[in-house]
Amino acid sequence: MSGLSKNKIKWIRSLQLKKNRDDLGLFLVEGEKMVAEAMRDFPDVIEEVYSTTEMNSQKFSKNVELISETELAQISTLKTPNKSLAILRKAKNKESIKSKGLILALDGVQDPGNMGTILRTADWFGIDTVVCSEDTADIYNPKVIQASMGSMLRMNVIYTSLEHYLATCELPIYGALLEGENVYHRSLEKVGVLVMGNEGKGIRSNIKPYINTPIHIPGFGKAESLNVAVATGILLSEFKRSEG
Amino acid sequence: MSGLSKNKIKWIRSLQLKKNRDDLGLFLVEGEKMVAEAMRDFPDVIEEVYSTTEMNSQKFSKNVELISETELAQISTLKTPNKSLAILRKAKNKESIKSKGLILALDGVQDPGNMGTILRTADWFGIDTVVCSEDTADIYNPKVIQASMGSMLRMNVIYTSLEHYLATCELPIYGALLEGENVYHRSLEKVGVLVMGNEGKGIRSNIKPYINTPIHIPGFGKAESLNVAVATGILLSEFKRSEG
Repeated sequence: MSGLSKNKIKWIRSLQLKKNRDDLGLFLVEGEKMVAEAMRDFPDVIEEVYSTTEMNSQKFSKNVELISETELAQISTLKTPNKSLAILRKAKNKESIKSKGLILALDGVQDPGNMGTILRTADWFGIDTVVCSEDTADIYNPKVIQASMGSMLRMNVIYTSLEHYLATCELPIYGALLEGENVYHRSLEKVGVLVMGNEGKGIRSNIKPYINTPIHIPGFGKAESLNVAVATGILLSEFKRSEG
Repeated sequence: MSGLSKNKIKWIRSLQLKKNRDDLGLFLVEGEKMVAEAMRDFPDVIEEVYSTTEMNSQKFSKNVELISETELAQISTLKTPNKSLAILRKAKNKESIKSKGLILALDGVQDPGNMGTILRTADWFGIDTVVCSEDTADIYNPKVIQASMGSMLRMNVIYTSLEHYLATCELPIYGALLEGENVYHRSLEKVGVLVMGNEGKGIRSNIKPYINTPIHIPGFGKAESLNVAVATGILLSEFKRSEG
């Protein structure tokens, strides 16, 4: 056990900030299960692995550096650190937005927990492409990664001008809007874009004109709205249920 | 502005702990919107209201105590305190479990954010009764209340031996289980119980034998599971969609 230098600890901790992740092109993945998955499925993008426990993967040829619980606590972003932490290289700019199925578009989703849960849910329903407005929560935020349960590693998530993307998009564009059609009453195309809006404000006024099919989930009780991750799950389920 | 005494601050803060909430039969509701809703809809159970801004309700006859931002920060459980805080009396033991529609049952849901989101979602779908195992997250936990967006105030939430309840229950009992039937392929009764399990472990082995209809949401991608609040939303949507 070699021990982590103060500088190393400081450097790893610096990746908790978006600015440093952007500058260095690196991000953190934590937890034994998620790190093991990354070693198995994405060995080529892993720069370093630190762990309090032995970890092996046939596909991962670099060293796993054994560290103490105390050292892990110093570099972890979690309240309850969980054995392993890896440093991964961010994907290069993925400029092309193409998918053979449904594309999810997010207009300013803010909460990292919601963002991660949305990615996990989209992955469950086989969505491979998510287009985000520039101000949507960063997928490389540790809380997003944690809530996504690793799904963010498998998905093509693009941050761009959502307005520009939708303006040039030739697919049917669905959007979750209170004034939309009852989603239970209409058929949904297999190929298209589903736009979900911000937690408090919904879909912004500059995006609304591009939505050719507004849809909504009817309410039966007194709650004023649904959580955005739950609403995304219900709508994706509606898109997929005829194939299920 | 009279100023809050140190003892008063300490007493209010003590309600952040379940033990003290249970002993005193009181709990905290925060945020201008939720406190205003409580003053409008449940004035009789409000003991005290503290606010940095004037608040009025025709139905609420007690004093709203004006406090400073600094005082609010001292009594608030929120990172970003939001104008108002109220102290409410917990409902008396609600022993009878009766509902004319679907009942939701929770077997050890742990995360307060998930618990609150589940209550908000259930309220949206018109569920009025939620039966919880004793170890399910406390509805009076400030994080549950916040995530429920006030829905917990409107619902009948009962903590009991879930096993005993299900053993004596004569309704059809559905449960979210990986080995369950594809929920898209079967018709669902309007009256019954839907059991959802713990985030990591699912439904426990002592509860499983009571489930006469295991159901599951088919996956299309690589995610191993859905978040429990998202899964609850999708299943409740399936129960309700024929009425929507």
